[in-house]
Amino acid sequence: MDIERIRPREWNCRAAVYGDLVFLSGAVAGDKTVGMKEQTEQVLAKIDDDLAAAGSDKSHILSATVYMADVDRKDEMNEAWMAWMDPDAMPCRTAVGAALTPGTLVEITVTAVKS
Amino acid sequence: MDIERIRPREWNCRAAVYGDLVFLSGAVAGDKTVGMKEQTEQVLAKIDDDLAAAGSDKSHILSATVYMADVDRKDEMNEAWMAWMDPDAMPCRTAVGAALTPGTLVEITVTAVKS
Amino acid sequence: MDIERIRPREWNCRAAVYGDLVFLSGAVAGDKTVGMKEQTEQVLAKIDDDLAAAGSDKSHILSATVYMADVDRKDEMNEAWMAWMDPDAMPCRTAVGAALTPGTLVEITVTAVKS
Repeated sequence: MDIERIRPREWNCRAAVYGDLVFLSGAVAGDKTVGMKEQTEQVLAKIDDDLAAAGSDKSHILSATVYMADVDRKDEMNEAWMAWMDPDAMPCRTAVGAALTPGTLVEITVTAVKS
Repeated sequence: MDIERIRPREWNCRAAVYGDLVFLSGAVAGDKTVGMKEQTEQVLAKIDDDLAAAGSDKSHILSATVYMADVDRKDEMNEAWMAWMDPDAMPCRTAVGAALTPGTLVEITVTAVKS
Repeated sequence: MDIERIRPREWNCRAAVYGDLVFLSGAVAGDKTVGMKEQTEQVLAKIDDDLAAAGSDKSHILSATVYMADVDRKDEMNEAWMAWMDPDAMPCRTAVGAALTPGTLVEITVTAVKS
């Protein structure tokens, strides 16, 4: 069975699909001038888009890892997360603080299955 | 094939099961007044409990990611880990330092299979 | 179906194989006196070696997580990554800053499938 590599770029691809399993690369906001909540909204929209390209959607996420540049702003991240998530399909999630590239406040990586 | 979501809460579930694969959310200690070794023991007990709810156990872990608030206290974490692990079923593990929520010294995320 | 545990050590194994899926432990450089690019090269050689022991190779990586002790040196890590990766088989990747054990500049964890 082959690995399908979606949206390959210079140093990674946006999604790798193997059978039903969908792996995404870490997603970051394009506009880094905005706050934690707004960056999280951008990240989640990117994840929606990458999942769609891979034949999945947010209700089929198994697990998400959230990296935050400032863990004290977790509530702002969470506000965007809660507005986005399907309450009937809560995935596993781990949220930790990490050093991110300049201006990036949040980066999220998800593993999902095809819908 | 459906995703079984175990112990859904406000913003995540404790475990997501797809076929034989079991994903857990990051586990942290309930009592944050204690040290690294004791918090790790609490975390590992939570993982035992979540794995049991998902139809798995510690001898069926594929991979664990350990996030430590203070990487200089890795030996204390490791002491609890070594006492807990099945020496005949060592999983993969990655252990790194990360900023965690106040008082949390260690957070562990595991991927396993059903037993 | 059993989990095959490759190169078990004191506290983890280097690879866990379940069906076609291959999980590796975080890999770090053996020689920590060298810079980010050189440490990354050592890490990637270790990953090649662990993947081979697990019946896989770098063109079968689904996803990689790169932890860097200094996120400002991401370009140096990337230089080694780009020289190593199969441009026709780009995996997903997430690269973040994390506190690592003394002298370690980079640690990489990968998930792959058998080749």
